[in-house]
Amino acid sequence: MDKKEYIKRQMSRTNKKDYENYVVTRIIHKLDDLDIKFVTQQYVKRPEGRALADMYFPQINFFVEVDEGHHLSQEEADRVRDADFVNATGNEPRRIRVADRTIEQINTQIEDVVLEIRKKINEAKASGEFVPWDIDKEMNPDTWIEKGKIHVEDKVAFRTIVDALRCMGLNYKVFQRGGTNHPYEKNTMIWFPKLYPNGVWDNDFDENKGEIIEKNIESEKKMIAHIKGHFKDPRKRRIVFARVKGILGDIQYRFRGIFKLDEEKSSTDRGLVWRRVSREAKTYDYH
Amino acid sequence: MDKKEYIKRQMSRTNKKDYENYVVTRIIHKLDDLDIKFVTQQYVKRPEGRALADMYFPQINFFVEVDEGHHLSQEEADRVRDADFVNATGNEPRRIRVADRTIEQINTQIEDVVLEIRKKINEAKASGEFVPWDIDKEMNPDTWIEKGKIHVEDKVAFRTIVDALRCMGLNYKVFQRGGTNHPYEKNTMIWFPKLYPNGVWDNDFDENKGEIIEKNIESEKKMIAHIKGHFKDPRKRRIVFARVKGILGDIQYRFRGIFKLDEEKSSTDRGLVWRRVSREAKTYDYH
Repeated sequence: MDKKEYIKRQMSRTNKKDYENYVVTRIIHKLDDLDIKFVTQQYVKRPEGRALADMYFPQINFFVEVDEGHHLSQEEADRVRDADFVNATGNEPRRIRVADRTIEQINTQIEDVVLEIRKKINEAKASGEFVPWDIDKEMNPDTWIEKGKIHVEDKVAFRTIVDALRCMGLNYKVFQRGGTNHPYEKNTMIWFPKLYPNGVWDNDFDENKGEIIEKNIESEKKMIAHIKGHFKDPRKRRIVFARVKGILGDIQYRFRGIFKLDEEKSSTDRGLVWRRVSREAKTYDYH
Repeated sequence: MDKKEYIKRQMSRTNKKDYENYVVTRIIHKLDDLDIKFVTQQYVKRPEGRALADMYFPQINFFVEVDEGHHLSQEEADRVRDADFVNATGNEPRRIRVADRTIEQINTQIEDVVLEIRKKINEAKASGEFVPWDIDKEMNPDTWIEKGKIHVEDKVAFRTIVDALRCMGLNYKVFQRGGTNHPYEKNTMIWFPKLYPNGVWDNDFDENKGEIIEKNIESEKKMIAHIKGHFKDPRKRRIVFARVKGILGDIQYRFRGIFKLDEEKSSTDRGLVWRRVSREAKTYDYH
């Protein structure tokens, strides 16, 4: 996928019945900078639960919401559950109010938001933190192998498990299991979990706490066996690439950090508790 | 309806699955001038028949088409028939080619089109022909009563027959017939026809020829009676407000000019032929 296709698809996700399409397209065309990535309809984690943000600029962690004066329906809220999300704590979205506003007033608000985005981009550039949007590069494992590490803040998501494994020095052509041993780091697994309720698993991930809950709910017997098995297993360290739905509905494997089994907090009642010990992992060449 | 609602609705008519939404919103946001009216999905008459134009700027008679590299389906072509259309002869649309073009190349083409639109607007302003877009005024009969006349080039369309009649000096609260006598002009009817096949009528309007064909196809007896009736009727002059579907699917009554019955060309075979004798009509105060 190139930027042309990406931008069209992002815009196509906006709602045309209200002012979302107007606001989102105006921000993008006014900003007019193909080095800036944007995401529409991004799932975000909020203190009150997950929600959909109308626009998100990952390079500057900036959210925009079109305030139509009505709220998310229950149906929309339900759809949020198994989708990818980012942590938006501490980042209040910039709201653009369209209800009871004239077109001139809406345009003025958009102008302000565009100026604010430009300012943040310039600040990031000045501090050397700005990485221009490169759609091919960002999902290419070689980018991260060259860098020598991946960080949660990089918001790395790979298209396949094979790509994620390559960053860890493993060269598979196909890979269909949920995890494998790390080739270089001791007692460490590379893990590709679904961090939401699925089938016999009642998993959960809390980005703020940096905590993964892994719980088998098939039967009490299996639940106990699962926990006992892990208590005995010496591989208590996990590099996690969570399976998520990407912004375009495609499956992606998003780096969530390095986790360690918290044996004290884990129980048959609560399930296994994996605690994040690092937001960064070393990468290895697979060539 | 205000400009805010109008612009949103126009944008909402664009196709989001291809690049139409991207191109149309970029042109509008780059142009960024609320004095310029635009219409999306405007029906236009072409030598090869009617077609849909992606964008139309009525004040400068300027068309834009997004060339996706595929053509109108038969289904779409069929839907064109009973809709409003404008005469586009001699005005080739500016095509924006998106197939096999990068996003940068698409943006450059849009930039050129925006410059061209601005140039035409400036030319119209310099020659005193430019009338800023006023959404309330354009459909208000008082606007045209003040002006003393309406012209086909003004592209006047009223929301109701009552509004059209007011321009002719008649003050009805409701009106449900297809026409009425002009209160001031002799042997003249004000007529609200459907200028396309409908029910027992096989009507047609050719903007280039300035010719209306009116033909009853219920039975040969009725067809002959209809023609004979009009040959005897002294009211051979008609001020025509054609019933059309407006750009938002709403019914409108669009001024088409003054027509006279062409008795020589009319026949039971061809139907009644009404020939345009003027593209302008006098207006009268109804107060």
